[in-house]
Amino acid sequence: MSQSANSAQSSVNCFRFPIRVYIEDTDAGGIVYHANHIRYMERTRTEWLRTSKFEHYWHQQDYNFVVHDISMKYHRPILMDDLLTVTARVISCKSASFSLQQEIYRDEILLASGLVTIACLSKDMRPRKLPEALKEMILEQLALEQQSLQKAQR
Amino acid sequence: MSQSANSAQSSVNCFRFPIRVYIEDTDAGGIVYHANHIRYMERTRTEWLRTSKFEHYWHQQDYNFVVHDISMKYHRPILMDDLLTVTARVISCKSASFSLQQEIYRDEILLASGLVTIACLSKDMRPRKLPEALKEMILEQLALEQQSLQKAQR
Amino acid sequence: MSQSANSAQSSVNCFRFPIRVYIEDTDAGGIVYHANHIRYMERTRTEWLRTSKFEHYWHQQDYNFVVHDISMKYHRPILMDDLLTVTARVISCKSASFSLQQEIYRDEILLASGLVTIACLSKDMRPRKLPEALKEMILEQLALEQQSLQKAQR
Amino acid sequence: MSQSANSAQSSVNCFRFPIRVYIEDTDAGGIVYHANHIRYMERTRTEWLRTSKFEHYWHQQDYNFVVHDISMKYHRPILMDDLLTVTARVISCKSASFSLQQEIYRDEILLASGLVTIACLSKDMRPRKLPEALKEMILEQLALEQQSLQKAQR
Repeated sequence: MSQSANSAQSSVNCFRFPIRVYIEDTDAGGIVYHANHIRYMERTRTEWLRTSKFEHYWHQQDYNFVVHDISMKYHRPILMDDLLTVTARVISCKSASFSLQQEIYRDEILLASGLVTIACLSKDMRPRKLPEALKEMILEQLALEQQSLQKAQR
Repeated sequence: MSQSANSAQSSVNCFRFPIRVYIEDTDAGGIVYHANHIRYMERTRTEWLRTSKFEHYWHQQDYNFVVHDISMKYHRPILMDDLLTVTARVISCKSASFSLQQEIYRDEILLASGLVTIACLSKDMRPRKLPEALKEMILEQLALEQQSLQKAQR
Repeated sequence: MSQSANSAQSSVNCFRFPIRVYIEDTDAGGIVYHANHIRYMERTRTEWLRTSKFEHYWHQQDYNFVVHDISMKYHRPILMDDLLTVTARVISCKSASFSLQQEIYRDEILLASGLVTIACLSKDMRPRKLPEALKEMILEQLALEQQSLQKAQR
Repeated sequence: MSQSANSAQSSVNCFRFPIRVYIEDTDAGGIVYHANHIRYMERTRTEWLRTSKFEHYWHQQDYNFVVHDISMKYHRPILMDDLLTVTARVISCKSASFSLQQEIYRDEILLASGLVTIACLSKDMRPRKLPEALKEMILEQLALEQQSLQKAQR
């Protein structure tokens, strides 16, 4: 885990977003309720798209983006008032879906990590191709990382 | 407060719905987060309409029901695992809105109470008349209670 | 309403906090679910205390701050992606509780407003006096506003 | 997927719990927000423990149960007003953790499925052995299923 965490932190195409923990996010165990990590990760994906000027896809008539699968690991508890950094980094792209690695940090400490696949659906909820411009943006980010890894290996 | 609570409990048109508290509802203070009382109250209104066979209004093309105002009093903390009874009782009806008194109990103990006004909007978000059948149902419930109060006073 | 909104916006002791709306905050009606306005207001109170260096009271052994009552008015729907300004302004202070007026804006448009009373409890959930330093801070803010109002009237 | 779904549905030790979907669970996409599936699954685990008379572990001084990892697959959208059946079935047990397979159905249609590992921690958040009685109950459920599978194969 710690290796992928490191690679995420140093990755050229790793998006970072700060999130403050409020008491509404915690439960009677005194820590953040485990479903809320998944909310933090979606907020970060939304901001990643906003930064990339692709937030309008969320509102378009012809597309529906849904979470197809999530795999979460909870490493350490997240606490009330924590100021988190949540990351998002595309790791693969298919014709009708793409996957991101996401991590949640307090300072340099990895608290949770997840792998998320987003599927693109038509309005009648059938799989459809990613919008061309979004796909290009994702492929660019993947190419940038590939170059950066090759440079690092030389 | 305790008087209106009593009248609600004994009212002929008071709908009651059981709700179990889960850890997701609590916060790090060890009690139910204060916005979740409002969720419990809406679940109860939804079940009140379902029981009255009016749940289809929630799905209809021509209507939008929105909360116009809420006034909440928090009397005692609600705890993890509590099995609550939440009530809903119509108390007034206008042409484009109606109001309910709602209470939350653990056994006979009043934990919270609220007064909610629901407004009926058209799809373009302008006030519109309540659907006729819904209004009739509400007026019937108000009449029933009026009769019951008069009987009690004799 | 619009008058108190104006006075809040121009008030010398009105705290302002920006909040972004995410899809998790919305419901199938396409607008922010009405209990989430109350979460936004609490986030803003927490940041108001953080700014005032009093956030440590939230974590102290001897105090419990709970919402005693809320009165909410919903003026216009809040939408996905809205960037809101949420305000908090103390309007009164007693020995064991204080009240705030809070408002939610998109640009200059008032979307919702609420009146909240926060009670201070001991750890065994009985009313207790506000911590002295917190009370002083609140009284200072109330005095500042009083002076400012008097100046405006001259 | 459909095979494990079938085995879960017919399993001798598969716990089933009904959950109603309310508007608070949905988002502006018109379907249940993907973090709420995880809430439904925890409610079901809590009820599974309540039925097994082990709910008191949730409240005990010496134990902390936390989610260690979750792997979710979202097969079909869950809709407002759906009456779901959520399952929980233990599939493995270690000294300080155990895993469950959980599924979410509308009638016979599998909507989502998840694999969850729960870790037992001491109050200072270090891994500790499962309480003996809880472990026995889990091992009994695993043995029952083993016997049932062997009978089915004869």
